[in-house]
Amino acid sequence: MTDFSQHKDLPFEVSEYRRRIENTKASMAERGLDVLLAADPANMNYLTGYDGWSFYTPQIVAVSLEHEDPVCIVRGIDANGGKVTAFLDDDDIVGYPDTYVQSTERHAMDFMADELKRRGMAKGRIGVEMDAYYYTAASHAALARNLSDAELVDATSLVNWVRLVKSEAEIAYMRRAAEICERMMQRAYDVIEPGVRQCDAVAAIYDAQVRGDGKTFGGDYTSIVPMLPTGIGTSTPHLTWNDKPFVTGEATILELAGAHRHYHCPMARTLHLGKPPEKLAKASEVVLEGVAKTLDFIKPGVTCEEIEQVWRETIARHGFKKESRMGYSVGVNYPPDWGEHTLSIRPGDKTVMRPNMTMHLMPGLWKDDWGIEISECFRVTETGAETFCNFPRPLLVKG
Amino acid sequence: MTDFSQHKDLPFEVSEYRRRIENTKASMAERGLDVLLAADPANMNYLTGYDGWSFYTPQIVAVSLEHEDPVCIVRGIDANGGKVTAFLDDDDIVGYPDTYVQSTERHAMDFMADELKRRGMAKGRIGVEMDAYYYTAASHAALARNLSDAELVDATSLVNWVRLVKSEAEIAYMRRAAEICERMMQRAYDVIEPGVRQCDAVAAIYDAQVRGDGKTFGGDYTSIVPMLPTGIGTSTPHLTWNDKPFVTGEATILELAGAHRHYHCPMARTLHLGKPPEKLAKASEVVLEGVAKTLDFIKPGVTCEEIEQVWRETIARHGFKKESRMGYSVGVNYPPDWGEHTLSIRPGDKTVMRPNMTMHLMPGLWKDDWGIEISECFRVTETGAETFCNFPRPLLVKG
Repeated sequence: MTDFSQHKDLPFEVSEYRRRIENTKASMAERGLDVLLAADPANMNYLTGYDGWSFYTPQIVAVSLEHEDPVCIVRGIDANGGKVTAFLDDDDIVGYPDTYVQSTERHAMDFMADELKRRGMAKGRIGVEMDAYYYTAASHAALARNLSDAELVDATSLVNWVRLVKSEAEIAYMRRAAEICERMMQRAYDVIEPGVRQCDAVAAIYDAQVRGDGKTFGGDYTSIVPMLPTGIGTSTPHLTWNDKPFVTGEATILELAGAHRHYHCPMARTLHLGKPPEKLAKASEVVLEGVAKTLDFIKPGVTCEEIEQVWRETIARHGFKKESRMGYSVGVNYPPDWGEHTLSIRPGDKTVMRPNMTMHLMPGLWKDDWGIEISECFRVTETGAETFCNFPRPLLVKG
Repeated sequence: MTDFSQHKDLPFEVSEYRRRIENTKASMAERGLDVLLAADPANMNYLTGYDGWSFYTPQIVAVSLEHEDPVCIVRGIDANGGKVTAFLDDDDIVGYPDTYVQSTERHAMDFMADELKRRGMAKGRIGVEMDAYYYTAASHAALARNLSDAELVDATSLVNWVRLVKSEAEIAYMRRAAEICERMMQRAYDVIEPGVRQCDAVAAIYDAQVRGDGKTFGGDYTSIVPMLPTGIGTSTPHLTWNDKPFVTGEATILELAGAHRHYHCPMARTLHLGKPPEKLAKASEVVLEGVAKTLDFIKPGVTCEEIEQVWRETIARHGFKKESRMGYSVGVNYPPDWGEHTLSIRPGDKTVMRPNMTMHLMPGLWKDDWGIEISECFRVTETGAETFCNFPRPLLVKG
């Protein structure tokens, strides 16, 4: 028997995982759940430390009120990955046979349901993450077919809400992510010139993302790759790079994130090559004023919709309007999204700010054929808000 | 009105998209489907050219037998992205309001169902990709609730199967991806040394991945990040990097892929620092023999399970056994998987080889506390199989 325990390199103390599990169980109890099946890789990681690019096959962490520790069920070849990365005992990491992988005859959830039955976790009210990316409609159908004695209940984002307020250890990782993100943005600013290929700029950005500070800590992959829509592409936020050159007279939106142990700090800036058009320069000023006033307003006790209102009223005075939400919670995550899927800074969201909530304030404006993004990732403090990054906000202009 | 058509830079001729749509409609007709809703980003891209890191909110391409062109429904802020990247008319790209994003009160599928009704696409038998990553259980429930007059039918992988045989234009992109992948592997080999941090090796690997050949074409992000389990980590395939140094006396599995316009070419090699242990050297020889015999066997007309049998019998003669599948189809893809979710090279898969099918032959062995991967991406030719990459296969040894 291989002793995996000596190889574990957990990002947090075991006590922190136990506290997270306790908080999750409390939330389950409140909702009358006996068992919770977390399929979101960020939730699996948050609860156990499990870490691997294995979320392309079905996998879950099951938490039961009747059991102290969760069980982690993954593809067979990934079980050793669990033993190396999760705090759990080897017995609580279970691998399913490869015949369940992308089969038309059987579903991995069939195996998981059987394993839950063996462990007495297949009864009562079972919460499932109905809207988690990797909990597919087929996964749910297979589970429902197998667990006809239990009641499956929607528990989307239950663990995500437990993740909302960060510990000091989590904040420390986000500060490292912020340092990485600043380096990435600086590299982007340094290398982007007319005639430089977008892909070559991305190479420089990745270099900073992955090397970290180059000495004491490295950088992780991020939940979203560097996004840098340019020219007409700035009218929409999610275009990635190609091998065309940057062009004088065009803007580029840089939405980047640093990550350390899967904790993210995103930031966006807008860079124009050559003299910017009046409307872009004006928009930059309006967004800057909006961001400053909004950050100044944020403190414990205020709500998401109140925050959005400050932003909305500020930019409305200059004739601007933003339809999309202007922020969301961030922290630990895996592709395809660094957002936590809990609070959104928009009308109707009455979530109350508390210290150590962490958000990405995203006051992006995307118009018919142009756009601008100047964003900040911030932490709610005891008395206000502080941004993670320190990088000049105004529209960046080169040449 | 902005004229987006002048900004389109489609990776393929419009005629190629139309051919793909015709093939999809033929497959739909065979299965008695009136409409197909593709939520898999690779399928959306394959059918229309749509491209953006926007798959973290619900989006679909709907194909109807009664309509010539598909309709693409995405988040509102991503609609311009569709107009820039998809061959469709602007009218066939629809954005939903941001109030549908990650809301607990409404689901984006509510909007999509209404839009399908408006277009007369909400009736009859509607195929949905039940096991596609971003088609969540909640998406399906919302759709079913809204389309009670229609019959929702599982059409998982219908388009994936249409993607199976590649066009010459697709093969050309995969050859570029292969050139990128060779460069990545060479960089990995060059930089990995005892004492070098894993993250710094990854920076070099990304550099090669993103710059492409440095002149005529660039590289894309890949569906899976560079994977390089090292030491005990080689007993499992999906660990990513950290900031610890490589160590003399340990092996590292390098599973990398190049990508161009989202077409992938993966390759794995195993590198040992210092004199390799006997069992690893022996395993390398066995895998090499197995790979060579297997590739030699492949030609049009043979089946997946026959291919696997050649591999299995070859390594069995040396006392080796592999539980997991030893290959799968690859081509265009988005995170989290570069596999196409169609054929698998394993017992029971009777898919018959045809020219221009493209696969990743993955004869990885993951044991109790060690492992080895030496893989090849290949194309079925008129008479046999040819690998995309040209890179030395034997166990790489340094120092």
